[in-house]
Amino acid sequence: MAKLFAIYQQPVDPAAFDKYYFDTHVPLAKKIPGLRSYEVTRGDVMGMGGKHAVYLTAVLAFDSMAAIAAGMGSAEGQATAADLANFAQAGVDVMMGETEMI
Amino acid sequence: MAKLFAIYQQPVDPAAFDKYYFDTHVPLAKKIPGLRSYEVTRGDVMGMGGKHAVYLTAVLAFDSMAAIAAGMGSAEGQATAADLANFAQAGVDVMMGETEMI
Repeated sequence: MAKLFAIYQQPVDPAAFDKYYFDTHVPLAKKIPGLRSYEVTRGDVMGMGGKHAVYLTAVLAFDSMAAIAAGMGSAEGQATAADLANFAQAGVDVMMGETEMI
Repeated sequence: MAKLFAIYQQPVDPAAFDKYYFDTHVPLAKKIPGLRSYEVTRGDVMGMGGKHAVYLTAVLAFDSMAAIAAGMGSAEGQATAADLANFAQAGVDVMMGETEMI
């Protein structure tokens, strides 16, 4: 299994972020070939000492890093990546890696 | 469901980090009451433009944020948190949130 983590910083307008994210970005991302599951945080992201500066984390599962590369290289993946500029102005950090249950 | 994300920055000595993490820290963390699953990245964490500055991400699953709070407040949770100082000198960011499959 491999996971893509997308970690979004607190937006200026959370309501506008949520509307765009769930109405537009998620439907785009769900078309990425090879996507197995899509999980998001709901409500505040907390840190060790209170509310975290991160607003939302998304975890997209694929079969492997090769599947992530193929998915992100597809037209649907490119459209999803390009769409970040439309709502993630506060910042988004993307990490990808093979994962293992231990 | 709720998840605790622990995001570790690149250590100076990756081999020493791995040894301590898998031999000592993981066994401590696995004793945290309420822990449902434990998933880690294996191999390089990649970003959008190559290798990411993050070295390893761990995702610990619990039933709810209340379960995370209870688990982290337990003696086992406190010992696990205190143990970070023994190997995560390069930095670790902890995020917790309720999650939903979408």
